[in-house]
Amino acid sequence: MAKINGGRGLTYASAGVDIDKKDAFTESLSAMLRRTYTPRVIDNPGGFAGLFRLDYKKGLFSRNYKDPVLVACADGVGTKVKLATELGVYDTVGIDLVAMNVNDLIVQGAEPLFFLDYIAVPEVDTKILGALVKGMAEGCSKSGCALLGGETANMPDVYRKGDFDLAGFCVGVVELSRLKTPTRVRPGDVVLGLASDGIHSNGYSLVRKVVAEAGLDLGKVYPELNLSPSKKPRKKTGNGGKTLGQVLLTPTRLYADPIVKLQRQYRVKNVISGMAHITGSGIGGNLCRALPADLDAVVDLKSWERPAVFRFLQEQGGISEEEMYRVFNLGIGYCVIVRPKFAESMAERLTKLGERVFRIGEIAKGKGEVRIA
Amino acid sequence: MAKINGGRGLTYASAGVDIDKKDAFTESLSAMLRRTYTPRVIDNPGGFAGLFRLDYKKGLFSRNYKDPVLVACADGVGTKVKLATELGVYDTVGIDLVAMNVNDLIVQGAEPLFFLDYIAVPEVDTKILGALVKGMAEGCSKSGCALLGGETANMPDVYRKGDFDLAGFCVGVVELSRLKTPTRVRPGDVVLGLASDGIHSNGYSLVRKVVAEAGLDLGKVYPELNLSPSKKPRKKTGNGGKTLGQVLLTPTRLYADPIVKLQRQYRVKNVISGMAHITGSGIGGNLCRALPADLDAVVDLKSWERPAVFRFLQEQGGISEEEMYRVFNLGIGYCVIVRPKFAESMAERLTKLGERVFRIGEIAKGKGEVRIA
Repeated sequence: MAKINGGRGLTYASAGVDIDKKDAFTESLSAMLRRTYTPRVIDNPGGFAGLFRLDYKKGLFSRNYKDPVLVACADGVGTKVKLATELGVYDTVGIDLVAMNVNDLIVQGAEPLFFLDYIAVPEVDTKILGALVKGMAEGCSKSGCALLGGETANMPDVYRKGDFDLAGFCVGVVELSRLKTPTRVRPGDVVLGLASDGIHSNGYSLVRKVVAEAGLDLGKVYPELNLSPSKKPRKKTGNGGKTLGQVLLTPTRLYADPIVKLQRQYRVKNVISGMAHITGSGIGGNLCRALPADLDAVVDLKSWERPAVFRFLQEQGGISEEEMYRVFNLGIGYCVIVRPKFAESMAERLTKLGERVFRIGEIAKGKGEVRIA
Repeated sequence: MAKINGGRGLTYASAGVDIDKKDAFTESLSAMLRRTYTPRVIDNPGGFAGLFRLDYKKGLFSRNYKDPVLVACADGVGTKVKLATELGVYDTVGIDLVAMNVNDLIVQGAEPLFFLDYIAVPEVDTKILGALVKGMAEGCSKSGCALLGGETANMPDVYRKGDFDLAGFCVGVVELSRLKTPTRVRPGDVVLGLASDGIHSNGYSLVRKVVAEAGLDLGKVYPELNLSPSKKPRKKTGNGGKTLGQVLLTPTRLYADPIVKLQRQYRVKNVISGMAHITGSGIGGNLCRALPADLDAVVDLKSWERPAVFRFLQEQGGISEEEMYRVFNLGIGYCVIVRPKFAESMAERLTKLGERVFRIGEIAKGKGEVRIA
């Protein structure tokens, strides 16, 4: 894993790139990174480190943070990388990587600041690497987050041809008094569920098993997969004639922009009790993270329409309802717990910000668990 | 890649760990992480994100940073992971992972704040995972850096049995006026070289090729490998009767503690012009990162004694001198460029802080390159 300067942007270390191709390639990557930069990013020519100015003295930022807490996450996208390889489509898992980290981070009430990645490959393929970084840059831009740099590791002895892996790291900041902790949640609070864009980035070992065992064709358009998840057509996941592969590679929804905007709108009132990013182990395994030890979230699984992809996989794989609930987000990708009197206005604001919002449950006395209504 | 709460410390997500073993295991990992915590780390029970308070209002920290710049790095340890697997020793690559990131970060003049990791495995082996985290916690402790959390990805479809990969991510902070940039370097400045602890974490694809092609035995004690690198015995790399495998797995030296202390001692004078972490592509490919476009570093390769492991590998592999220089650190792991009048006192201070220091070159008019004297 040799480090070559000037890989992806100024802080990038890329490995083994053909020297002749390298200049044009690194220039194109650098341009993608730069589009995600804010004035707080400091140039670091030749360096391996990314530089981000906290900039307390200037403008809006100085008013926001008197006692700043840095929030940091690390995550990958699991075996969704295998599906990307099978389909030869790489930009969407780049978005997934950003989403998995940024969505974890905003749960704390934080605003994302910057993102770094680690890409491990058996050999440097500039087309694949370019697509991955393009997806990451897109995810970062949409999340208001600078793609500060990363590392590309060229490891033919560890990764088989075609295989690769991704790890992402995200740092954000939250004012200490606005840090979301389970102590804020109260009985009677309402759980709002924000629609997911499908499977997101968890459960792909099971998904791939269903595809293999049911003999499904990733290139085929299955009509039952292209049903609208609700009577209202949804812009971003219309699924109009998408192949199974395209549906399964739909990137994880990025909740940072609406959630950060929502919190700015409610700045003084601080009406959000807690939030949850629904990842592996589903609603049951993630919403509980926002709960104190003496309260439960009581969730009605019939309060939203399950996207077609979940029904399709459940039928094709003969998967039990319990297993579906334990593995998948089932259509809810993010939860916001809110004081009851603000539930309606907050749902309206989130809808205006482009989210499909469902009132999926409420908080009751209990023992820190998620109960099915 | 399911996420299970409470893996390694409170912010950890671990995957697929046997539920019966899980509690004791996560408790032991959590204890390792907690030993690296400073009062600035905020507990986040149940959360996926690590929380680090910048804490401007209190004590020493508030006096240090008026205009803080966050510095962030991402790096792995390359194919040194293969050697760890072959030898069944995992804690040292954990130290390597921290060192590769922290050493990159301090080059900017930054103080490390916190570290996160990504570990990808084909199946969760608590012994291996425990050893990796133990090494990371040790590296973090020695670098004054909190091991804030991370992600363990269980990906049997990507990683073959025995294989694994590591990615690290480090965030530090530097006062804007103290940020090291190439513009500080002047003609006549002296380049001090700090001894490495051997090969560190670069060049292992070549190392493993030499081992394979020369039919070397990783379990054997080669006498020529156990020569002292200098007449002065060096505490940390005595190599007294070490096997080839042990010599090759020697962890990357952690320079954060002496370098941060050194900068505190010279706080007012700001006499360090620049620094370089010598990684892949050696002194030539890394020292140049600290140089402006119109200055060269003229380095005398005879100004320090090359550790025995480099001579051994060069002979066994029939490697050219040019290739050795291009791939390995050759015994210098970190460089400090300093104003000439402070070179001697700084070398003395670094020696007192436990480093072996050599005056390896100086800065002259040029074009941003490293020249051999």
